[in-house]
Amino acid sequence: VSDERALSARTEALFRRLVRREAEPALRKLMSHHRPEDVAAVMSHMTWAEQRRLYAMIEDRDYKADLLSHLTEDSIVAITQEMTEDVVADLLDRMDPDDAADVVSLLPEEVRERVLDEMDEEEAVEELLGYAADTAGGLMSSAFFSMPDVATCGAAVRELQKNSDDLSDVQYCYVVDRERRLVGVTSLRSLIVRPPATPLAQIMTRTPISVGPEVDQEEVARFVARYDLMSIPVCDAEGRILGIVTVDDVVDVIREEAAEDLLAMAGLSDAPDPGENSVIDAVRLRAGWLLATLCGGVIGSEVVNGFSETLGQVAALAGFIPVIMGMGGNVGLQSATLAIRGLATGHVQLGGAMSFITSEVKAGVTIGVLYGTILALFGSVRYPETPLVGVAVGVSILAAMAGASLLGSGIPVALSRMGQDPAVATGPLVTTCIDLASILVYFNVARLLLGL
Amino acid sequence: VSDERALSARTEALFRRLVRREAEPALRKLMSHHRPEDVAAVMSHMTWAEQRRLYAMIEDRDYKADLLSHLTEDSIVAITQEMTEDVVADLLDRMDPDDAADVVSLLPEEVRERVLDEMDEEEAVEELLGYAADTAGGLMSSAFFSMPDVATCGAAVRELQKNSDDLSDVQYCYVVDRERRLVGVTSLRSLIVRPPATPLAQIMTRTPISVGPEVDQEEVARFVARYDLMSIPVCDAEGRILGIVTVDDVVDVIREEAAEDLLAMAGLSDAPDPGENSVIDAVRLRAGWLLATLCGGVIGSEVVNGFSETLGQVAALAGFIPVIMGMGGNVGLQSATLAIRGLATGHVQLGGAMSFITSEVKAGVTIGVLYGTILALFGSVRYPETPLVGVAVGVSILAAMAGASLLGSGIPVALSRMGQDPAVATGPLVTTCIDLASILVYFNVARLLLGL
Repeated sequence: VSDERALSARTEALFRRLVRREAEPALRKLMSHHRPEDVAAVMSHMTWAEQRRLYAMIEDRDYKADLLSHLTEDSIVAITQEMTEDVVADLLDRMDPDDAADVVSLLPEEVRERVLDEMDEEEAVEELLGYAADTAGGLMSSAFFSMPDVATCGAAVRELQKNSDDLSDVQYCYVVDRERRLVGVTSLRSLIVRPPATPLAQIMTRTPISVGPEVDQEEVARFVARYDLMSIPVCDAEGRILGIVTVDDVVDVIREEAAEDLLAMAGLSDAPDPGENSVIDAVRLRAGWLLATLCGGVIGSEVVNGFSETLGQVAALAGFIPVIMGMGGNVGLQSATLAIRGLATGHVQLGGAMSFITSEVKAGVTIGVLYGTILALFGSVRYPETPLVGVAVGVSILAAMAGASLLGSGIPVALSRMGQDPAVATGPLVTTCIDLASILVYFNVARLLLGL
Repeated sequence: VSDERALSARTEALFRRLVRREAEPALRKLMSHHRPEDVAAVMSHMTWAEQRRLYAMIEDRDYKADLLSHLTEDSIVAITQEMTEDVVADLLDRMDPDDAADVVSLLPEEVRERVLDEMDEEEAVEELLGYAADTAGGLMSSAFFSMPDVATCGAAVRELQKNSDDLSDVQYCYVVDRERRLVGVTSLRSLIVRPPATPLAQIMTRTPISVGPEVDQEEVARFVARYDLMSIPVCDAEGRILGIVTVDDVVDVIREEAAEDLLAMAGLSDAPDPGENSVIDAVRLRAGWLLATLCGGVIGSEVVNGFSETLGQVAALAGFIPVIMGMGGNVGLQSATLAIRGLATGHVQLGGAMSFITSEVKAGVTIGVLYGTILALFGSVRYPETPLVGVAVGVSILAAMAGASLLGSGIPVALSRMGQDPAVATGPLVTTCIDLASILVYFNVARLLLGL
């Protein structure tokens, strides 16, 4: 079982070596022992040329379609680029409509129309293309199983036996009324266990949880997670079922969103997976955020320089610049992280966000008083000839922490309220503003207290 | 459907108000309209006393058991504290064994034994208690459905009909050989669709993906996500199936792990959900990390103070301290984030981590050269009387970025190799080390170049 469990780094290296050598028979044999999901994982570490070469070697078209649906978006673009429209259309016809729609949405505008024309199952895919990719509509599949509420368990089982091909992974039987509105749900198991003559209306769970097609994918994921669902129905305004979002897609959404939040907090949005990117890509990815840091830093150096006279008189002042900046930055990062996570899990709700922000500021001020006092004492003892330097440091620490906790918790909430991604809030703009404000407070308080 | 979809902030407020007023009949009515998952979400924002009061009002014991299994760990402790052993045992008997084992593991040592003795389904729970909570064994449920490989589809359906109570959410039929080793798997749907006389061996998928009970929950989650599974079997060394981990538990694991990574990166490990914690808790949560930052800052101020003579001669030097620290810190954060995410998704594998670290350092050095040059030019033009200050700044930026990208990418990998959580690597210790090293390089290069 071991080589089935996951690909070792060694297997991956073997794959790449065989592709480079164009060792077709050996590659075919190796692939026949691995699932498309595994081959997709291997391909994500290859160059485009290698990926195309490997893909072209595969003969089984169902395997090709399955593999294509598991590749990264960039790989799909690279591979479909070199195919004729009828080949792409044939592969799409072999996929689930939701996977096919995802691939179609990656094709260049001018090719898309022609590929759809070549397809046999064009309609289902075209319907799905009408929804934004990050909504319930964009995630849903039209491969669901529904029965009228007047039907019996036995009728449902017979219906399933008829439609065996289209419903490969069906988990639930959705029950609809005469107007085709969703009124209940029952597990596949109940259909088997109950006597065949039992009406569905008698065994179904009423008012099942559903979402509208416009609902954001993060919210869909929250429902599926909270109610432990295998799939969630997507209904239109009249309550008619349009499709279902399955839990495996939800798992992908949760992983994506978590990764995006993490990356966005470090100014790394749109980061490709490690291994795919060249040094140039890596530099480009980081350059923007760091350029903002650089500009903030230059402004900061001008601010400090504006106080060069003060610094010349009391050299001890310079030493505390880093600690004031560091404390403010870290408190701001902590508040922002709690806000971003709370907004993601629903624990910080937009309506009740004020109490969250208030408690963050309280915490910031409390720590500010505590550590400000410690630093004030340290500063006064360390530089007994200018004890007021310590006081200035303490006051600035307090101000920096209060401001940082307010901005750190408030900005994500504000962004979220404006429909923006809160995770970008920890970016250099906010950090730089907090830094500059702290330095200004620091030097001005110091000048005031020291009478300079 | 709207109030079924999710709890509005208003409904939550209503719940709390009714609990405070001890309005039992109104609360019972309100609860009858909400699922246990929703009531659990509401309770997570209440005080322990309110939670206990609400829980005591519920009469339906199956509802109580269901609700208990959805509460947070702290709530479970608070609520079970005030119950007699036989009441707890009765609730546990109404849960799935894996949920029951989770609750038992939270009970105080001396109570645990007595509760288990009172239980009817003690054995299944005791077996599960033998596994660490964050492994496949700790996650698995013993409620799975298996059949011998010589059985037919019809026999499997009849078996399902017999065991209808224990297997409420079964998705797959696992097929075992004469030695009870797992040899295949088939969907529930196939059992219905195929003619009853079809042998399972003929329709099953062979060599199904499985994990050992000791496998880490993150790895279990990766398998389930990669292969789009509804559940994954957990097998012993001989290949005999011990239990299954279902996808809803995997969804919880993925959410937990993502939240933990995010929080750990901001020095907020073990953060309770917002809303539950007092200001004291909030301060305590942040205090450690910030204390480390404070200590690092004080050491930094000493280092800067050691160069006070140099600073007194060239005041412009002080202005660049913040930008050098900021650039190093941000590059380090970016490298660490990519490493943590890559290790979590499996894109950075421990065996092939060297190429990742190398590419991070290359990116760090490239940006260091780029931005170091920009800052060197700026510094020379801005302070024409001491142009070498700019050069010192540029060299220090380069050194800080190279060091930060090396430490930022290398430390998570090293931690992971030692079996530690890589997400703690962005902590203040690493940041402080990078900061201090950058400042030392900066002043020493400046002294050398300026001949001070």
